[in-house]
Amino acid sequence: MRIQLAVDRVSIPEAISIIQEAKDSIDIIEIGTSLFKDYGLHALHEIKDAFDIPIFADIKTIDEAAYEFNQIYKAGADIASVMGVSSIESIRICQQVAQSYGKQYLIDTMEMSEDKIKALTEFEDAILCLHLPKDKAGDLQAYVTDFLAKYQLKNKVAVAGGVKMEYLESFKEIGVDMIVVGSAITKSKDIKGQAAKFKELCA
Amino acid sequence: MRIQLAVDRVSIPEAISIIQEAKDSIDIIEIGTSLFKDYGLHALHEIKDAFDIPIFADIKTIDEAAYEFNQIYKAGADIASVMGVSSIESIRICQQVAQSYGKQYLIDTMEMSEDKIKALTEFEDAILCLHLPKDKAGDLQAYVTDFLAKYQLKNKVAVAGGVKMEYLESFKEIGVDMIVVGSAITKSKDIKGQAAKFKELCA
Repeated sequence: MRIQLAVDRVSIPEAISIIQEAKDSIDIIEIGTSLFKDYGLHALHEIKDAFDIPIFADIKTIDEAAYEFNQIYKAGADIASVMGVSSIESIRICQQVAQSYGKQYLIDTMEMSEDKIKALTEFEDAILCLHLPKDKAGDLQAYVTDFLAKYQLKNKVAVAGGVKMEYLESFKEIGVDMIVVGSAITKSKDIKGQAAKFKELCA
Repeated sequence: MRIQLAVDRVSIPEAISIIQEAKDSIDIIEIGTSLFKDYGLHALHEIKDAFDIPIFADIKTIDEAAYEFNQIYKAGADIASVMGVSSIESIRICQQVAQSYGKQYLIDTMEMSEDKIKALTEFEDAILCLHLPKDKAGDLQAYVTDFLAKYQLKNKVAVAGGVKMEYLESFKEIGVDMIVVGSAITKSKDIKGQAAKFKELCA
């Protein structure tokens, strides 16, 4: 499994310092939603310039998809997120823009209805991020297990929203492609060591 | 009816120039989602400093509500938006943070299910923004009329997503409190004149 490090709710220099510590153990840098809403594309430019690691931009597009996705890929993002609760039309535009740049896009499942999830079959080229909201505590392991048992989707699967080390073995078994880890690494007193432990368990 | 001018997909100097032209005819400045995703809170600081008009920040919170709403009110916004498709927990946090600052919050109805709309009764202090996505063409007048006939909510009502001059008379009749106008004013060759026309029709 690959590891995406989510960096959120810090200044840009703090973000760069955190990534510097963790960089040997991660596959993708996630520039969190808060960094865009606080600093805009400037956050992406600064972090992209500092590291040679693919960038996931968690911009959580929900409308105005052509503008947002063009802006973010032009600024150098490798993957960008659209909310699954958006209109199907918005998700289709994200897919088209991603394809036109030869880049990837991710659909975030947060708060999606069953009907909407079933309508995702036309987006098999998307990464599907099984995501529990930060504001609504839940059992991520159960959510992911139930989701994958219930829906027969062919997408690559990422999981986010409270990933713990003890979940990793089962996530590997059920075919999760990528885990998104935030504060379990970024708030650790030993960021480098903690990131290395996650990497070892994901191998 | 009040008029909110939505400014989107332009640079900050362009935004300030547009607002300068329209300012005598508008009640609220909307800093559009794209300005946050492109420039972060810097857009809010610059525009707030330039005008003595209340600011609506269209940050479209969908999670991490405490962080985002604290950031935006601290930065000087008077009203902030949360997506109705968020978890109820996120909307509750937005309500609490807004109340703690003595500020207003707006719930955006884009892509909400019937059940979710019916669950909004606990948020009577929110402005409810009846909003059609930019990415999914629709008849805004019919959407607003049907929505208000169907749901007996007590919220103040804003409308957004393709407001036209010919809708204004019916919007006034059915009790709409505020219209959100973007490109119908901002893309006009005569921004000042067009804003004045909207103001006259809203009186």
